[in-house]
Parts: sequence; structure tokens; C-alpha cells
Amino acid sequence: MTKKTAPASKRRNIPDPTIARLPRYLRSFPEFVHANRSVISSKELAAASGINPAQVRKDLAYFGQFGQRGIGYDVKTLDAKMREILGLHKVWRIALVGAGHLGTALLQYGGFTKAGFRIEAAFDVDPSKVGWELEGVRIWATPAIRQVVREKKIEIGVLAVPASQAQRVADDLVDAGVRAILNFAPCILAVPKSVLVRGVDLASELEHLTYFLDKSREK
Amino acid sequence: MTKKTAPASKRRNIPDPTIARLPRYLRSFPEFVHANRSVISSKELAAASGINPAQVRKDLAYFGQFGQRGIGYDVKTLDAKMREILGLHKVWRIALVGAGHLGTALLQYGGFTKAGFRIEAAFDVDPSKVGWELEGVRIWATPAIRQVVREKKIEIGVLAVPASQAQRVADDLVDAGVRAILNFAPCILAVPKSVLVRGVDLASELEHLTYFLDKSREK
Repeated sequence: MTKKTAPASKRRNIPDPTIARLPRYLRSFPEFVHANRSVISSKELAAASGINPAQVRKDLAYFGQFGQRGIGYDVKTLDAKMREILGLHKVWRIALVGAGHLGTALLQYGGFTKAGFRIEAAFDVDPSKVGWELEGVRIWATPAIRQVVREKKIEIGVLAVPASQAQRVADDLVDAGVRAILNFAPCILAVPKSVLVRGVDLASELEHLTYFLDKSREK
Repeated sequence: MTKKTAPASKRRNIPDPTIARLPRYLRSFPEFVHANRSVISSKELAAASGINPAQVRKDLAYFGQFGQRGIGYDVKTLDAKMREILGLHKVWRIALVGAGHLGTALLQYGGFTKAGFRIEAAFDVDPSKVGWELEGVRIWATPAIRQVVREKKIEIGVLAVPASQAQRVADDLVDAGVRAILNFAPCILAVPKSVLVRGVDLASELEHLTYFLDKSREK
């Protein structure tokens, strides 16, 4: 996975890998709540999130005193604090550009429509899709990006278009005022410094995996 | 993005973030080759890959002396060396489980079918898809996983199924002998220690982005 992240000064000195693990912790909380567990140990959180206990304790330490020695961590406090850290205590308005297979998969993917994110509009170049709804989200023609994004005060653009279209779409989103772009197209985007870009290269995940496979074969 | 990676001992002490950036460098090489540039500077590589020059130099230093001071880096040597490091100098046989929107998007995504990866079979629970081909890949019924994966000596399983099905599918893949799983389902998989799992949580990418947005808003 390739990433472009904000400068360290914006991160309260919390390492990027720690921030990247917070969503995994968040995903594990519902099962504890479901089991009426209000206080959990770092070991339990480790097992539920698939992260080793030492790493869990280290990660949590960056966010102040959540836990009490020998007692454990309060699930609700942890959940609220991590959501606040990730900026999920407010609703983010999102535009999805590209309503093909990837765009549709993203719309259907639970996490993208959970509290914290609201996909306000989708865009596609295919006239046969325009005017329809996909998972409850209206699809607009791509040339309408500037107008719709401005009107709906959309803050984040998600790019699920081919690499050949990505820069043009990014330019339109930036012109319309988005503050961040999550880019699934396998290309580097040129945007003003004030706009955050995070690139997700699905193929590089596979390449990262073969790196470890190849090493373990050599043993 | 959530990740579960191999222990440090398997990594030749190369930091995980460096390995994660190699695919970005690889993606930038074709444009240099296309422009008949056989030697490039770290600054040029930085611009083409969207990574800062100091980081580029630091990353390359982990892999020995690719470059010559004042002259630059040989593109072909860099490309070959990085492919070797990532284990892309051989062909990996892959099974895709789940031929819905995400699975189809992955099949259509250039990088997954480039040299280095060969998707040998796809699987789906939907009887109407079974027996058909998708992007040239035959779709089998999910219960055939064990047999087909064994027969085709498949080494990597890519999971594009709902979280509720992921563990069962992973069990089948492990029984059939895969050595690694790339898991797009938002859940933690239990597998033997000998099997590598890398989890890709598409929603957590968005949460990671809002973290930086929220911080920059506070400034």
C-alpha cells in the first residue's frame, strides 16, 4: 500500500503506524460491548484486534492514561477517545468519483457508510448510470463535480476511476474545495499543498505480501 | 489500512514502511524507460513517486550500493533489484475468492495481473457465476476451493468475501496449502503461524485520512 501522509508536525508526534492501527482497535470494540464487557485488558484487546499485546500497550500509551494498572481499559472511553483522535466524532461529507466495480464495492463496504462518513454524491462518466441511485447515493455526471461538490460542501473525494482520468478528476475536486482525496487509482496526483492525498494501491499490497513470502521461503 | 506482517527476523532488518514504498518506486520506472532515461537522480525518482528526496535516498540505502555519487541510479538495475526484493522475479499463483464487485475490480486492476502474479482461479457462492470466466479467469463454486487450490498449486489466496464468510474460506485455503492470504474482509483471521496474512481494511484508509484532516483543522 502506498501512502502520502501529512507532515509529522500535524500528528502530535504519534507515529503513523500507531494511527494506522487505531481502526483495528475500533473494529474490535463492538464484540466487547455485545458481551457486556466494560473493562478489558490489553491482552484481550490484542487477541481481538490481532495485534501483539506489547504493541497494544505501546500504542495506547501515546494517548494518555486510558487504563488503570491491574484493572484494564474502559471500552467506552477507549472507543470515544480513539474516534476523537481519528476525527470520527464529527460527520465527514464525501464524494465518490467512479461508480464502477470498485466504487460500488466501496459503497457496499460497511465502514464507508458508518457513522462518521456520509457519501453525499457519486459521479460517473457512463450516461446510463447517471440519475440512478447506488446504495442510496445519487449518481451524477462527472462534469457536475465542481457544482455538486461546492453545493453539498463536500470535504473528501474518493477516487475510484482509472489512472488516466484521476488527475483531471482530482483537479475538479480541488477546484470545488475538497480538503482531502483518497486515491485508489494507481498514479501519483499533483495537488496543492493544502490538500491531503492518501493513495491506496491495491496491487502493492500483494507485492508487499510476496516480499515476506519470498523471505520465508529462503529460510 | 490494517496490517499483519511477518516477524522482523524475516525482513533482513529493512523497515516495513520502506518495503511498502518499493511498489511506488517500481510504478514510476516505466516513464523513465519510455523517455530513454537509463540513469536517474534520487530527486527525479522522488518527484515521479511522490516521496520526498531524503526519504528516497534513505530507502535506497537499505539495498546496498545501487547509485553512484554524482551520477545517479541505473533504472534497470533498480527495477530488477526491487522486484527481486519484493519476490516478483518469479510467478506467484493466486486464487481470488469472491467474484462480486470488489473481486471484479481486483481482476480488472492492472497490477494484479501483471508479470509476477497469475490469478489461476476465482471462486464464488453464486451459482449463476460458476462456470463463467471473468477477465479470462474461470469461476468455480466455493466448495471446490480445496480441490482446485491443491491441483493448481496455488500459493496465495485473495479474500474478497463478506466478513461473515472470511474465516471459513480462509480455513479451506489453508487446508489446501496456501502460504499467504490477502484479506479484504474487515475481520481478523485465525490461521496457523506458518501462513502469512495481510489485512486490507478499505474503510480504515478513510479513517486514517480524517485523522490528518482533523489535526490540520485545529491549526
